[in-house]
Amino acid sequence: MALESALAAAAAALRGATSVIIGSHVEPDGDAVGSTLGLASALTLAGIDAGVVLASGGGCPSTYAFLPGSDRYRDPDGFEAPDVFVSLDSPALHRLGRAEPLARSARTLVVIDHHPDASADGDINVLDPEAAATGCLVWRLLPHLGVTADRVTADCLYAALLTDTGRFSYGNTTPETLRTAADLVDAGAHPHEIYAAIYETRSGGAQLLLGRTLERIALANGGQIAYAWIDGNDFAETGARPEEAENLIEYVRALGGVRAVFLAKANGGTVRVSLRAKDETDVGAIARGFGGGGHRAAAGFTWEGTLTGLLEALLPALPGGAR
Amino acid sequence: MALESALAAAAAALRGATSVIIGSHVEPDGDAVGSTLGLASALTLAGIDAGVVLASGGGCPSTYAFLPGSDRYRDPDGFEAPDVFVSLDSPALHRLGRAEPLARSARTLVVIDHHPDASADGDINVLDPEAAATGCLVWRLLPHLGVTADRVTADCLYAALLTDTGRFSYGNTTPETLRTAADLVDAGAHPHEIYAAIYETRSGGAQLLLGRTLERIALANGGQIAYAWIDGNDFAETGARPEEAENLIEYVRALGGVRAVFLAKANGGTVRVSLRAKDETDVGAIARGFGGGGHRAAAGFTWEGTLTGLLEALLPALPGGAR
Repeated sequence: MALESALAAAAAALRGATSVIIGSHVEPDGDAVGSTLGLASALTLAGIDAGVVLASGGGCPSTYAFLPGSDRYRDPDGFEAPDVFVSLDSPALHRLGRAEPLARSARTLVVIDHHPDASADGDINVLDPEAAATGCLVWRLLPHLGVTADRVTADCLYAALLTDTGRFSYGNTTPETLRTAADLVDAGAHPHEIYAAIYETRSGGAQLLLGRTLERIALANGGQIAYAWIDGNDFAETGARPEEAENLIEYVRALGGVRAVFLAKANGGTVRVSLRAKDETDVGAIARGFGGGGHRAAAGFTWEGTLTGLLEALLPALPGGAR
Repeated sequence: MALESALAAAAAALRGATSVIIGSHVEPDGDAVGSTLGLASALTLAGIDAGVVLASGGGCPSTYAFLPGSDRYRDPDGFEAPDVFVSLDSPALHRLGRAEPLARSARTLVVIDHHPDASADGDINVLDPEAAATGCLVWRLLPHLGVTADRVTADCLYAALLTDTGRFSYGNTTPETLRTAADLVDAGAHPHEIYAAIYETRSGGAQLLLGRTLERIALANGGQIAYAWIDGNDFAETGARPEEAENLIEYVRALGGVRAVFLAKANGGTVRVSLRAKDETDVGAIARGFGGGGHRAAAGFTWEGTLTGLLEALLPALPGGAR
């Protein structure tokens, strides 16, 4: 009930607003893009004009550029203080990046988020860690706005749900999650086309980079840990773009029989490390020990030094290590 | 209504049976295994003992051996003519392989299938091409049997649904499909664990084989076609098992910008070819031209000859080819 009240308050603020801007977190993922574009589309249906901004100030990430409305993103610097700013999927205001000043300058700040560590930074806070995606909370906002989703809205919110559940693979794949997905398809979302656009349009360079990453998988710590690495040469030689390395770790993680995996991306004198747990190992705590952060099952940190130095320091801290 | 009548008739035959055997098609996939084990489990709940057989006579494929009840498979030769034989997910009796004689010897043959080309070979035929998986038809049989699914039944049927929708990616991912998935999770299925067991327990050899397959992707026909190949040396050198090459084609298919893809698996003097369309290309028709078969978007054939000879013959028949 508290959630429905918050949703009603958010809808009332939006309906009464003279200007609305919607933003999300830096390094936008499918939920960030899908929920912002989905809300923007729903507001259009409600007769409310809204600006949409990215935390980086740039355009839509190429993976999600197929979504209808992806050309709506504008630079935050182009806007004055809005009447209402809606922060979506961003657990803290600083995660809004270049849009943070706009959020702070708004007369009413609405925060809609599903992260367990979300801050109630808004004047109105729609927070629900049980929601599989922030897109699901936008979906629940629609009746309060008095609108019925069209295909554009449904496609955007389905993309949010699909990606934030790892294609219905994570622990947040509950009956309610699957029923929301069904409702979105009823509303006109295209599950096959959205899946294909996100997961089946890999570039030749991305395929080559994945190939060599898989061939480099090594076991350590008595077989309890698997890892792989890539460096700048790999991008030059395969033609893959840096953002195409973002989900490589998921393919490393698909190896069975290990407790945790990591991927090391060397660039200049630093190494960006992504960790994933496959059992109850808390890789978030391990990442924090190296100055990074994240969740229990997915975390990361940046290592100042060489790949060799990283392995010498990290492996002993992981399950089966000598420490 | 015709479908509900057929389901009722199937349930009545099963409830009155003195002996029941359940079988499915050769080269069993997730729907074949999940629907047979799911029905066997549901019959146990209904107090009906059933034998479960594989078309090959062997044990459960390793990918699905994690499913509860996977140790129930027996050799068809160990059974006498049953009172009722249930053929699941098999569009023709000859696809039952070594279990075909048992099916033909049964007093009552029940056919439950969702393939569009399924034959009404049974005394009772539960055929529905709208069902995303045969497991969905088994799910709809449960109320007629007077039982409520337990976790074992739900897990097996969820595995059937997950795999036959390509993890909710194919065109059969309808609102009804997603709601059945939700109902199965409500009944106790474990979506995260089932996904991980099927898609995230790859062997080191399978990862290496995938890596070299991706590195071998080549474009042809002016960029409209992509293909890759593997041969016996690849298995020897990577340690991958033959069955681990079965879904390699899906990773080749993930390449964007092409109209169709194929994977050629050379073995001795023959090449097994898997084709996938990414647009409206009818690869089934092309495969039939080479003595094979399949659907519009997924088909295959066996080539007697070399890889080079295959490329010379197949590429002209594909989009952008010279023919």
